Amino acid sequence: MSRYFDDFSPGDRFVSKGVTFTEADIISFALRYDPQPFHIDVEAAARSPYGGLIASGFHTLAQGFRMMLQEGLFAECSMGSPGMDELRWLAPVRPGDTLHMEGEVVEARPSSSKPDRGILKVSYRALNQRGETVMSFSVAHLLRRRATD
Amino acid sequence: MSRYFDDFSPGDRFVSKGVTFTEADIISFALRYDPQPFHIDVEAAARSPYGGLIASGFHTLAQGFRMMLQEGLFAECSMGSPGMDELRWLAPVRPGDTLHMEGEVVEARPSSSKPDRGILKVSYRALNQRGETVMSFSVAHLLRRRATD
Repeated sequence: MSRYFDDFSPGDRFVSKGVTFTEADIISFALRYDPQPFHIDVEAAARSPYGGLIASGFHTLAQGFRMMLQEGLFAECSMGSPGMDELRWLAPVRPGDTLHMEGEVVEARPSSSKPDRGILKVSYRALNQRGETVMSFSVAHLLRRRATD
Repeated sequence: MSRYFDDFSPGDRFVSKGVTFTEADIISFALRYDPQPFHIDVEAAARSPYGGLIASGFHTLAQGFRMMLQEGLFAECSMGSPGMDELRWLAPVRPGDTLHMEGEVVEARPSSSKPDRGILKVSYRALNQRGETVMSFSVAHLLRRRATD
């Protein structure tokens, strides 16, 4: 479980366990952070272009990140992240949908200025129970290197 | 307050009111979505490269989006978003920090296939009480157009 930057290579793939999005969680998150009618009001959502309640994209993102963290790959080496790119919400996430995450390492670059760390770029997808990709994004993970002699 | 896609133009700027990030909110969000030691454990955070507790970047993002929503610019016209680009976490957000958001429209493009909507690209920044930019990103907003004759 205790991996470091040096233990990852481009092409490495990870798959998370799943989480089911409930109506209660969707409304609770959105009421606090993204209170648009199609995220918090079942009746208004039914009349919206989505035809029913859908999760806030920020909820899907945060919950998706938690699913990957839970796998423990970065538990000992994570030093945070400078950013994310190309976040796409590709399909609605509705109450009862069960998502899991898949990740693939696309680049591993040691820091040129700080020898104790490196940047790991990982491309992530969230998939639902029908195998549809509902969200994709890439993250630059700042990871600690193994101590050298 | 009731704006539509047609009411926005490149160069338009918005400024939100502020929100203060508390230690309680930082830990509560992170415990649910991003439980890394430097987001939930004051003692471990003090020994981390950040030198103290910092907010999850997903918390800063979601709270920042809420700040802009609260201004009501998109209250009547928002149809959601296909995605975000170039999210950067530029400086730590610590307990007691007060952030506000600034947005600038960079592109307004009517949909070529659906005449009732358009895509508004907005570049956002979150700034703290010292005027430091702590986060930046751009969002493609899907907005309803004014009904035409």
